[in-house]
Amino acid sequence: MKNMKNNLNEHIDKQMVKIEVSLDDMNPEFYGYIMEQLFSMGVNDVYIVQVIMKKNRPGQVLHILCREEIREKVMDFLFLETTTLGIRYTPYTVHRLERTFIEVETEWGKCTVKIGKREGKIVQIAPEYEDCVRLAKEHQVPIKWVYDLVKEKGYQWAKEQ
Amino acid sequence: MKNMKNNLNEHIDKQMVKIEVSLDDMNPEFYGYIMEQLFSMGVNDVYIVQVIMKKNRPGQVLHILCREEIREKVMDFLFLETTTLGIRYTPYTVHRLERTFIEVETEWGKCTVKIGKREGKIVQIAPEYEDCVRLAKEHQVPIKWVYDLVKEKGYQWAKEQ
Amino acid sequence: MKNMKNNLNEHIDKQMVKIEVSLDDMNPEFYGYIMEQLFSMGVNDVYIVQVIMKKNRPGQVLHILCREEIREKVMDFLFLETTTLGIRYTPYTVHRLERTFIEVETEWGKCTVKIGKREGKIVQIAPEYEDCVRLAKEHQVPIKWVYDLVKEKGYQWAKEQ
Amino acid sequence: MKNMKNNLNEHIDKQMVKIEVSLDDMNPEFYGYIMEQLFSMGVNDVYIVQVIMKKNRPGQVLHILCREEIREKVMDFLFLETTTLGIRYTPYTVHRLERTFIEVETEWGKCTVKIGKREGKIVQIAPEYEDCVRLAKEHQVPIKWVYDLVKEKGYQWAKEQ
Amino acid sequence: MKNMKNNLNEHIDKQMVKIEVSLDDMNPEFYGYIMEQLFSMGVNDVYIVQVIMKKNRPGQVLHILCREEIREKVMDFLFLETTTLGIRYTPYTVHRLERTFIEVETEWGKCTVKIGKREGKIVQIAPEYEDCVRLAKEHQVPIKWVYDLVKEKGYQWAKEQ
Amino acid sequence: MKNMKNNLNEHIDKQMVKIEVSLDDMNPEFYGYIMEQLFSMGVNDVYIVQVIMKKNRPGQVLHILCREEIREKVMDFLFLETTTLGIRYTPYTVHRLERTFIEVETEWGKCTVKIGKREGKIVQIAPEYEDCVRLAKEHQVPIKWVYDLVKEKGYQWAKEQ
Repeated sequence: MKNMKNNLNEHIDKQMVKIEVSLDDMNPEFYGYIMEQLFSMGVNDVYIVQVIMKKNRPGQVLHILCREEIREKVMDFLFLETTTLGIRYTPYTVHRLERTFIEVETEWGKCTVKIGKREGKIVQIAPEYEDCVRLAKEHQVPIKWVYDLVKEKGYQWAKEQ
Repeated sequence: MKNMKNNLNEHIDKQMVKIEVSLDDMNPEFYGYIMEQLFSMGVNDVYIVQVIMKKNRPGQVLHILCREEIREKVMDFLFLETTTLGIRYTPYTVHRLERTFIEVETEWGKCTVKIGKREGKIVQIAPEYEDCVRLAKEHQVPIKWVYDLVKEKGYQWAKEQ
Repeated sequence: MKNMKNNLNEHIDKQMVKIEVSLDDMNPEFYGYIMEQLFSMGVNDVYIVQVIMKKNRPGQVLHILCREEIREKVMDFLFLETTTLGIRYTPYTVHRLERTFIEVETEWGKCTVKIGKREGKIVQIAPEYEDCVRLAKEHQVPIKWVYDLVKEKGYQWAKEQ
Repeated sequence: MKNMKNNLNEHIDKQMVKIEVSLDDMNPEFYGYIMEQLFSMGVNDVYIVQVIMKKNRPGQVLHILCREEIREKVMDFLFLETTTLGIRYTPYTVHRLERTFIEVETEWGKCTVKIGKREGKIVQIAPEYEDCVRLAKEHQVPIKWVYDLVKEKGYQWAKEQ
Repeated sequence: MKNMKNNLNEHIDKQMVKIEVSLDDMNPEFYGYIMEQLFSMGVNDVYIVQVIMKKNRPGQVLHILCREEIREKVMDFLFLETTTLGIRYTPYTVHRLERTFIEVETEWGKCTVKIGKREGKIVQIAPEYEDCVRLAKEHQVPIKWVYDLVKEKGYQWAKEQ
Repeated sequence: MKNMKNNLNEHIDKQMVKIEVSLDDMNPEFYGYIMEQLFSMGVNDVYIVQVIMKKNRPGQVLHILCREEIREKVMDFLFLETTTLGIRYTPYTVHRLERTFIEVETEWGKCTVKIGKREGKIVQIAPEYEDCVRLAKEHQVPIKWVYDLVKEKGYQWAKEQ
């Protein structure tokens, strides 16, 4: 079975689903663990929207974007781990750019840069955050400087293509 | 006609719809009344998302989840009561757990607990908030203690099943 | 002892304090009860700010504005009812307008309007929300129409002063 | 080809689409420019939801509501201007009221009022914000007074229909 | 009298004040105009926090940072233009970096860059947003590319100091 | 020098300061790293408030609560790592409860519980989140069950005191 998540070519994925869970009685501490587990199950994106629910409740709506084929597994997990009694979902189509990963050399060491292409043309140049953090820590340099320099190297690479 | 909202068995409801109304010119005081009225019309859920609209407006998007069969009635209400000129909606599927209500006995009196079951297995134990508030007020006990004790009784009940 | 809260003349109150409680492990259901109790203790204002805390927690900061003289009582309440281990506060000065209440007659009945004056000059005309809700319900009229008409009557009254 | 956006009759538009872009690495300054450009491309609505993403990121989800026929053009723009590598969308139906524009005369000059009708009946009376701002500035009057007076004139017009 | 706002040397300003206005009954459209007017009065910063107020109201707290010497003028404005009946404030100290403005040359034209120095050392390199927007529009280039290139030129300038 | 942060007795700390940084041009990815570094510098609390800034910017206000004695060090860090040109602060007083840590035994292993006391009386019973996560992962049990059971053990311990 083909894992759509790892398809690095530009493609349109019509088998995606957005799952939403409204939560108004769950300990906010649990979200960190729940998000981590969801990502390890292979979902594509997770985020929390802070909302206003009935009776002055500062509730949360947990949004999960994943392939339809793992929806059931994700919902099993959500019913077990969150406090919800109902989960809703609706289909979404996702258009993803072609992704390549290049490595650039900086004065502090190597760093990966994600390149996004639209119809073969470079449109995104995104330094890998974790690499930047590592270099910033090792060399005691502000992360903004590491990130900006790495991006500049990405632009240079792009111009040479 | 069967009222899906009161179906207490585990079920998948494909006749749900999410209605969204973007509001950037309504007095925020009105939301309390509007939410109350929406719930009394039989919608399943209502919540407000605070958003950023054009021209630095701190707008709101009102989200309403209801059965398709009352959508028209809900929209009539929204056009009359809010300030919107357009309402959007899209279908959602909702998976709801089996719900049962048990009563537990605490040192301050009785309290209802909602039990949620997935394929016959207990996954949710949710003290009824209004009952907890009543006990907390009557006995001048912190609501967190009432709630936690009631939940503990719910766990005890669950272990005995 | 003079209750500053009921001082309806324009005045500057230098005895106010803002109390803040950061909460990242409390059931969101409790806020309704807590806010209600705080208002009944005589605080001037309460509101919830939804924030991002460490470890991806969708936390809340509860803000309470009250007179310094009830600060201790409010803090006792917060330590008992919320889950916090620390409460912070800082002094604020509040400038309040002169407040008067007038009654206007509408086609649906009477309604109170709060009038705010700055140095004797009318600057605010605020229909009483609860009155508007009552009229809207009794006469099955949209709350926005009731509110707008009542405000218009307030403006008419103001012009005649 | 008919431009549905300018259809001023009450109608139900089944050719709408909601486009969502999750952004966690874009300079917040860019949103103003991006929203402006999106509106000039003919989208119906744009708003930003501030969310919590993985790794304690205060991310944004950009929501765009537009006709299906300009979706591709909008997505081209978003891939170029934002930092996203994937865009998702799902169809929405929109019910729009009949819109007419009337002009009312105030003591400070003329002002447009948008009128919304549901099945021929007036349900919305909305002063044009930009007109109110202009009058407020020219005559050094609080915008709330201009707006409220213009709305009152709109109500008067409505009663005469 | 010295205008502290235009002091471009690094300095600590102990004459600042934070003004806060809680609003739960104002048309969200008004904020754009109010913020614009506040900036033109010389305040240093304005921002809106969306909060949850009593009775399920999606309220706003308007935050204004300004010098103590214009506080009265700002409050006069707020009482007139917003719907509030009370305004609170508390002193703040602000530490501001030394600011210089340099001009860099890009392939699309000139652009200003703000430089921030801490004890004489460059710590901030901030392209002027409005300049970037102008270049992006004139040359039909994504704003992110303009901004990133301008920043790179700023870094180059910094290295040469 | 006494480290106030580790004072586990109930106490009132008048040497606290709230530092606020308004950010409207920083990559949201950086917050995770910045928060982590701030906690390792010994600040007491950090949280992010998502706000609306001028020109439709979805900005952030970073709030840091720390002892006055480390304020300068924290500000040095913020000027270096964030993109701000100005930092503001104001004094706060913090009242902290007495804290003790007990260990409870569950069917899945040991877990720490933080106990908060007000004038010698137990008011808070807070399971250690990281311990709960560890047990939940090791035994493949929902974190809510681990957390609730641990809290129950904490209540039992409290009753025996």
